Amino acid sequence: MKVIEPKSGASLILKKGEILKVTDIEGVQVSDMLLYNLNNHNEKISSGKTFDYEETILLTKGNFLWSNHSNKMVEIIEDTNGRNDFLLAPCDRKTMKHFYNISEYHPSCYENLHKGLEKFGISKETIPSAFNIFMNVTFNQNGKISVDPPTSKAGDYICFKAQMDLIVALTACSALDSNGGSCKSIGYEVVS
Amino acid sequence: MKVIEPKSGASLILKKGEILKVTDIEGVQVSDMLLYNLNNHNEKISSGKTFDYEETILLTKGNFLWSNHSNKMVEIIEDTNGRNDFLLAPCDRKTMKHFYNISEYHPSCYENLHKGLEKFGISKETIPSAFNIFMNVTFNQNGKISVDPPTSKAGDYICFKAQMDLIVALTACSALDSNGGSCKSIGYEVVS
Repeated sequence: MKVIEPKSGASLILKKGEILKVTDIEGVQVSDMLLYNLNNHNEKISSGKTFDYEETILLTKGNFLWSNHSNKMVEIIEDTNGRNDFLLAPCDRKTMKHFYNISEYHPSCYENLHKGLEKFGISKETIPSAFNIFMNVTFNQNGKISVDPPTSKAGDYICFKAQMDLIVALTACSALDSNGGSCKSIGYEVVS
Repeated sequence: MKVIEPKSGASLILKKGEILKVTDIEGVQVSDMLLYNLNNHNEKISSGKTFDYEETILLTKGNFLWSNHSNKMVEIIEDTNGRNDFLLAPCDRKTMKHFYNISEYHPSCYENLHKGLEKFGISKETIPSAFNIFMNVTFNQNGKISVDPPTSKAGDYICFKAQMDLIVALTACSALDSNGGSCKSIGYEVVS
């Protein structure tokens, strides 16, 4: 298993049929994930298409994540924690300022996703909302959103089976409140 | 008031401080809306950033719609119906096939948004989830989504005040189920 150090990121190629396992090593830690079609970088993960086709906001084992071109990108085939978020955008420097009043430089998922993607020639301007693994965003019938500590425990994992050849970018999220007050590492491996 | 004919679209420039009024002329009709920064087309409306900063899925009077660059694009200053959606992506030919089994050509919000944007040199590949005015997407605590008929009545309207110079693309939505079974027209005007 490879380790993404706290407040950093990684990227990899995942071929059709391969399975990516993402592990919350210590527990209570979010990992933002982006997917691009390896052979057409204009095709990428889409929260809107996924909500549309899966007909649910909450995505877990048995659900697919879809692209902006209305194609399936991955299937979630295991999810021991069972709670993920696809509502919120990756944290960036302005969200650090807004929610934490941090004005100086601070790592962010947006920056770490960009670092992972730029080696494949993908511009930061194309970054959409990420699939936020282990993130615990609750909402009520009035739509009110709350970012709560992840329910994931040490060793919880989620497995994605690729439905096309993909570029995957992953982070160990850098925002304190999303991760129960401390930023920890994330593990990942291609298991088939 | 200008009229967007059923299953078609329009686009316009809205300068900072101007107010765009969008009217459901007959009632029970959705209008998809996209926003781009007039002076930097890489900056555009973002559901993820909007949910993040507004801390709600349901957006109405008093809420702002935010960009992928974490800036406010418009404020909703009036909303006589009060129900809009920002979860679902614009309908396209594949959604027409998936939900309605329509294989031949059929108009879609995706196509109509693209037609409105291309005159400004904006590629269809950049199209994100739109703000779906008057769209009635309900969800329960388990995340299950349902597309219900709009609650908007003839003459209901919503007003957006621009927080920066914008390109706006609007549609009269082409998907039957989103519009209570029939596709109707939409009105719009810049009122200041």
